[in-house]
Amino acid sequence: MEVPKKLVTTVSGCADDALAGLVACNSGLRLLQGHRVVLRHDLQAIRGRVALLSGGGSGHEPAHAGYVGKGMLTGVVAGAMFASPSVGSILAAIRAVAQAGAAGILLIVMNYTGDRLNFGMALERAQAEGADVRMVVVGDDCAFATPGKAGRRGICGTILLHKVLLGPFMGIWGIPGGSKLSFQLAEDEMELGLGIHGEAGVRRMKMLPADKAVETMLKHMTDPSNASHLSLTPGSSVLLVVNNLGGLSCLELGIVAGAAVRCLENRGIRITRAMVGTFMTSMEMAGVSLTIMLVDEELVKLIDAKTMAVAWPNILAGPATTRREEVPAPIEAPRKPQDDTGIGPSTARVERVLQRVCSTLLGMRDKLNELDRGAGDGDCGHTHAQAAQAIQEWMRSRPPPAAPAQLLSALADVVLEQMGGSSGVLYGLFLTAAARSLRGNNGSPAWADAMDAGIEAMQRYGGAAPGDRTMLDSLFAAAQALRSLRNPGADPLQVLAAAVQSAEAAAEATRHMEAGAGRASYVHSSRLEQPDPGAVAVAAVLGAVLQGLREPLGTRQ
Amino acid sequence: MEVPKKLVTTVSGCADDALAGLVACNSGLRLLQGHRVVLRHDLQAIRGRVALLSGGGSGHEPAHAGYVGKGMLTGVVAGAMFASPSVGSILAAIRAVAQAGAAGILLIVMNYTGDRLNFGMALERAQAEGADVRMVVVGDDCAFATPGKAGRRGICGTILLHKVLLGPFMGIWGIPGGSKLSFQLAEDEMELGLGIHGEAGVRRMKMLPADKAVETMLKHMTDPSNASHLSLTPGSSVLLVVNNLGGLSCLELGIVAGAAVRCLENRGIRITRAMVGTFMTSMEMAGVSLTIMLVDEELVKLIDAKTMAVAWPNILAGPATTRREEVPAPIEAPRKPQDDTGIGPSTARVERVLQRVCSTLLGMRDKLNELDRGAGDGDCGHTHAQAAQAIQEWMRSRPPPAAPAQLLSALADVVLEQMGGSSGVLYGLFLTAAARSLRGNNGSPAWADAMDAGIEAMQRYGGAAPGDRTMLDSLFAAAQALRSLRNPGADPLQVLAAAVQSAEAAAEATRHMEAGAGRASYVHSSRLEQPDPGAVAVAAVLGAVLQGLREPLGTRQ
Repeated sequence: MEVPKKLVTTVSGCADDALAGLVACNSGLRLLQGHRVVLRHDLQAIRGRVALLSGGGSGHEPAHAGYVGKGMLTGVVAGAMFASPSVGSILAAIRAVAQAGAAGILLIVMNYTGDRLNFGMALERAQAEGADVRMVVVGDDCAFATPGKAGRRGICGTILLHKVLLGPFMGIWGIPGGSKLSFQLAEDEMELGLGIHGEAGVRRMKMLPADKAVETMLKHMTDPSNASHLSLTPGSSVLLVVNNLGGLSCLELGIVAGAAVRCLENRGIRITRAMVGTFMTSMEMAGVSLTIMLVDEELVKLIDAKTMAVAWPNILAGPATTRREEVPAPIEAPRKPQDDTGIGPSTARVERVLQRVCSTLLGMRDKLNELDRGAGDGDCGHTHAQAAQAIQEWMRSRPPPAAPAQLLSALADVVLEQMGGSSGVLYGLFLTAAARSLRGNNGSPAWADAMDAGIEAMQRYGGAAPGDRTMLDSLFAAAQALRSLRNPGADPLQVLAAAVQSAEAAAEATRHMEAGAGRASYVHSSRLEQPDPGAVAVAAVLGAVLQGLREPLGTRQ
Repeated sequence: MEVPKKLVTTVSGCADDALAGLVACNSGLRLLQGHRVVLRHDLQAIRGRVALLSGGGSGHEPAHAGYVGKGMLTGVVAGAMFASPSVGSILAAIRAVAQAGAAGILLIVMNYTGDRLNFGMALERAQAEGADVRMVVVGDDCAFATPGKAGRRGICGTILLHKVLLGPFMGIWGIPGGSKLSFQLAEDEMELGLGIHGEAGVRRMKMLPADKAVETMLKHMTDPSNASHLSLTPGSSVLLVVNNLGGLSCLELGIVAGAAVRCLENRGIRITRAMVGTFMTSMEMAGVSLTIMLVDEELVKLIDAKTMAVAWPNILAGPATTRREEVPAPIEAPRKPQDDTGIGPSTARVERVLQRVCSTLLGMRDKLNELDRGAGDGDCGHTHAQAAQAIQEWMRSRPPPAAPAQLLSALADVVLEQMGGSSGVLYGLFLTAAARSLRGNNGSPAWADAMDAGIEAMQRYGGAAPGDRTMLDSLFAAAQALRSLRNPGADPLQVLAAAVQSAEAAAEATRHMEAGAGRASYVHSSRLEQPDPGAVAVAAVLGAVLQGLREPLGTRQ
């Protein structure tokens, strides 16, 4: 079998297969034996009421079968791809609902010659059999300023008719609204006024920004010199439908919807309801159609009425507007009262340590970038230097807090806001968790706990483990050594010196590791001949801390 | 300003604009001031309850903002296109719901490093501020048979978590199900297991038919040798999600859905619910993802629970199955009792007239085709010859009814079933309406009425008027002449002869007409130098009827 480029099982069976899939997945639908007809499963509910039937060619899904169900259509008849349904199937659908006891049958037909002829023929045959069948032809297309004899085409506005023709028998031809299609071409052009079968449009132009494109469409739709126009005046209430013709991204659809609401609003129009979604497509056409229906209270009530039809969207009973009040930004929570009694270095010592860390990182910028070039994007030195400069800047603006928890928490803020990249968040996670651990935790063993807490947080969210060739390798080695702080009588600086040595050795050892996380994990290990820059940076930071703690405060760096 | 190929207003603003559009069109949503955060408008409803927050990069619409609303998420945080949201915005969202009085906050995060880090960082900060925040990381991707350290990615199954994590606080990591992506390449290949940011898939292969592609996906998802597999055994109950990744046609989506239901059914799986639609996209990626979640009664109850979220589909509370009982084909209504008393020709005369009509049309096949080639698709002679052969065939099987109404009604059946094209339906409409008019209508004036009724039906559904260069031109001219049948004492054959002359003249006159309907209306009038083949055919048929009525019955043709 020749396999098509589309995700279909067989080309000839695609209309049948799609309909069968819809029915399989929706317990409220049934197929009519021997016909491409979908009916409500609870057909008996139509007894004594007016049945609504519609249909048309396939390729416009979810139209029309998606609109079958309580509160919308009784059934639909589908043709082959972009082709009118057969008279025999339309007649079979009419007979089925007539035999279920419908008091009358209304055919909702889109204005295309083939559909009009075939539905009309079936209507005549059914009437000859004694059924009370009538037909409404929908022509909601606003594209043609001077419509030909064929009249306005039926497009997406049709689904509104499917919805509002509830219960009572209405004999209207056409609806108080209009629709317009826009089609986005592959290159830098767009075309306005296409048909849903890809019929040529009325205007082709250079691609416009979304807001301008929407403005152009709405202007054309409401231009009094356009014989198909919809008359809109300030104060008019409308329902707006923004319809994906198939292949437009939902992101673009949202942008168009916002632009349409704003544009109408600026003209003083009230958008009582807005529907944004995929309602009537032309296979995967990358375009959008806008439909505007003038509404009064009764029509809005019909639009809001509950339906079981699967393709009808969830619409909240409220107007669309770009002028919604925003939720005020939350109050920045005051920091929990800090425990300032923890044993920590003096402010002068903190400043000395941080200066040492910053100058070290600034001095390593090129080296770290170089190391990063082999495996990452070569900006590791740059990122760390950025953090160093931010800390220097911050220290110039105020003296750093001396209480350990407050200090680390403040540093977390600085790196989160200024360092950037994953490293910024990882340092931020480490510092935040370490700060929490230090809160109310006294003595030098608290620093061992803080190190463990920081590493745990990094691992929890970052996903890397020791041995993955990341900054965690040196941190983890240092943490192992820092545990000696818990031994009674341990000398903090001696322990830290040991930790720095461990970290440096661990950083060097990453040279022989395969990357298990981070960007380097996408690079083959044979190309990784240098140590991991993140691990090297961490070891250097710890070394700088040691240096800063050891230096007599009187000396200048 | 440089205009992009996409329907956006500005590239840099596209994530903001799409979110603003969503909020503008949905009265149940609000933006958080200064942040790319969408919240429920009725935020006070969260007081004393657990708030659900989610989010991620833009470009996956309707995820996640479409799932905000009563019964689903409390809010979402959006990043730039395919980028993680910022820590600051996540923290702002957490603070906003905490300040609204949430008893606890659950972050639903898809398993991507950036999302994990940024949501994790915000969580740590919020916890430090005293908020009770927890996080669930979703990894439902079944693509990788041996997942790396990063673990399974979060894909479309995430929206199920958005739904079932109602009310009670659940601490699960991952869900009892799995998802798989398939991506359709432009040419003749397809790729399985892609990420929703276009990350490379696990397998690229020649394009398969939809049923085979679905089988391949489901097999991989449930293969015990795949470490990410979902264990399915006969009797398992599942929820099936068939998700359009953005640019797949809804027709294909329906086909895939049907194939998935059939494939699972064949393995003895019960599909308790099926969701088919556009739930989590990757811009306009032309592909599909399948998600299967093992369900029990409680989960189904949560899935069925009402929600105000706009992107959650209407699902009927019933299982999916390809084995739904079909609605039996309707009984073909018995023809209304015919009035056989009308004055009409004998069966032999009817046969003679029909033979004459058929031989005339068969003789004109090439001429009509030739006339049609200038304006249509050159098959007018062929179509008419097909009708003629069908009538001959029908006469060989049974004698034609002599009662006029019955005769025309039977001929309508024959042309509708065998002639094809618009012409078949137009003749069918004409004959059906004429037959109805003849029913119980006696005398030769009845034929004038029948002609008018037939023309009226043709015009009503076909949309053409006299002067539009169609078959209607000769029919209309003949009808004018046939009105003389209503004059007392008119000689029917003389009137018919005049009608044939009028018809022939009208057909010839179409040579100078511009086409107002039908296929020829797309051709410029300067290229239409021949008379309309439909009009010529009608005149010839009328001429043949006259001939057939005049010929003595004894002679052979």
